Amino acid sequence: MNSIMESLYHRKSVRVYEDRPVSDELKNEILDAAMQAPSAGCQQLYTILDITDQNLKDALAETCDHQPFIAKAPMVLVFCADCKKWYDTYLEADCEPRLPGAGDLMLAVTDAVIAAQNAVVAAESLGLGSCYIGDIMENCEEQRKILKLPKYVFPAAMLVFGWPTPQQKERKKPERCEMNYIVHENAYHSMKGEEVRQMFAHKYQNHSFGEWCQAFCNRKYNSEFSKEMTRSVREYLKQFE
Amino acid sequence: MNSIMESLYHRKSVRVYEDRPVSDELKNEILDAAMQAPSAGCQQLYTILDITDQNLKDALAETCDHQPFIAKAPMVLVFCADCKKWYDTYLEADCEPRLPGAGDLMLAVTDAVIAAQNAVVAAESLGLGSCYIGDIMENCEEQRKILKLPKYVFPAAMLVFGWPTPQQKERKKPERCEMNYIVHENAYHSMKGEEVRQMFAHKYQNHSFGEWCQAFCNRKYNSEFSKEMTRSVREYLKQFE
Repeated sequence: MNSIMESLYHRKSVRVYEDRPVSDELKNEILDAAMQAPSAGCQQLYTILDITDQNLKDALAETCDHQPFIAKAPMVLVFCADCKKWYDTYLEADCEPRLPGAGDLMLAVTDAVIAAQNAVVAAESLGLGSCYIGDIMENCEEQRKILKLPKYVFPAAMLVFGWPTPQQKERKKPERCEMNYIVHENAYHSMKGEEVRQMFAHKYQNHSFGEWCQAFCNRKYNSEFSKEMTRSVREYLKQFE
Repeated sequence: MNSIMESLYHRKSVRVYEDRPVSDELKNEILDAAMQAPSAGCQQLYTILDITDQNLKDALAETCDHQPFIAKAPMVLVFCADCKKWYDTYLEADCEPRLPGAGDLMLAVTDAVIAAQNAVVAAESLGLGSCYIGDIMENCEEQRKILKLPKYVFPAAMLVFGWPTPQQKERKKPERCEMNYIVHENAYHSMKGEEVRQMFAHKYQNHSFGEWCQAFCNRKYNSEFSKEMTRSVREYLKQFE
């Protein structure tokens, strides 16, 4: 296995950081690597917000499902799917652009996330831990206000970075599902019954499938933050109708 | 710059391939690397379709905006945002899951694309070229049919892989915008006038801003494939209302 493969295998989320800053030099290297990521038609359909203001970090720790570790991260980036930048550019050139639609949004989301994952890989190569915060999609009214997000700009992913504590370095990476459940040949294959029980067997171990699944469903899927995410994303989607 | 950073900087899209297969061993390494990517709550909210059937590749070359090189790629992967897998699992365990919503879709799209970009980085480390095909989001009716996509499964990204021809290796990587236009500190900053003209100056070079922009708008944004993408994504979104 080459060193890049090893790094991809080794990388796990880090949520506790040493009290040590990330230099501007390293940050710029990571941002540069993000911007070198593939992009649809090289349009770079994203804007990256570099959150340096501690008050803003504190606010995001609240608006992103009350996760205090966000406020303690020395480096916080919000990857916005940006359908406004090009639209404004076309207006500037007196083109007659159509209004941004759902397809533009989705293409911009993929662009933004591709760049974000390059930032994760780059950070890992420098010894920096990272963690995605999906909750940035929640509470659209507050996020739009604190990040000054205009119409047609959607915060697709937030990443926090920092130097991992020794404990975090030793933490076991959560096990993935076996490949045969994730990779289907040629066509989608629906799974039920024994197949889904087997797929997640490594997750419930000492519990019954039913017990584990009910607890997980309550915590992740039927939870308040999850319902809020759908409400909030729907609000953003209204801009693209 | 370490070797991982160098690889991220060096990587560019490859659309012409040598007539040489990708071994199953390499493919599995790449798929494994994709599955090791960060994932919300380690849920792996995606299913990867490994397209091995030449007839299917031929069909995708048509349904993805008529791009014949897709059919010639030795390895084709479709990264689907999968909101069905966990929903079915919850049903299997007699939970009472709510119906998948727009937030679930967006979280699954980010999960799928994060995994896809790991595949790109892994492939690059092995000398394999890759190219994203955003057009997989178009023509939902046909894609759903040929890939047997059920409700709550959305093809977020397609990747084609192959060994780059010498010519492709020498092709210049398209230049990115300067960082100050892409990275904004703390809050989104709207750009107009001279600022957007400067941001894209490297793109229009020997043309006027207006000429370049009008041509680009016609080719990319006001184009038929782009309108079709929005129509098609809207159709997928209806499943999540």
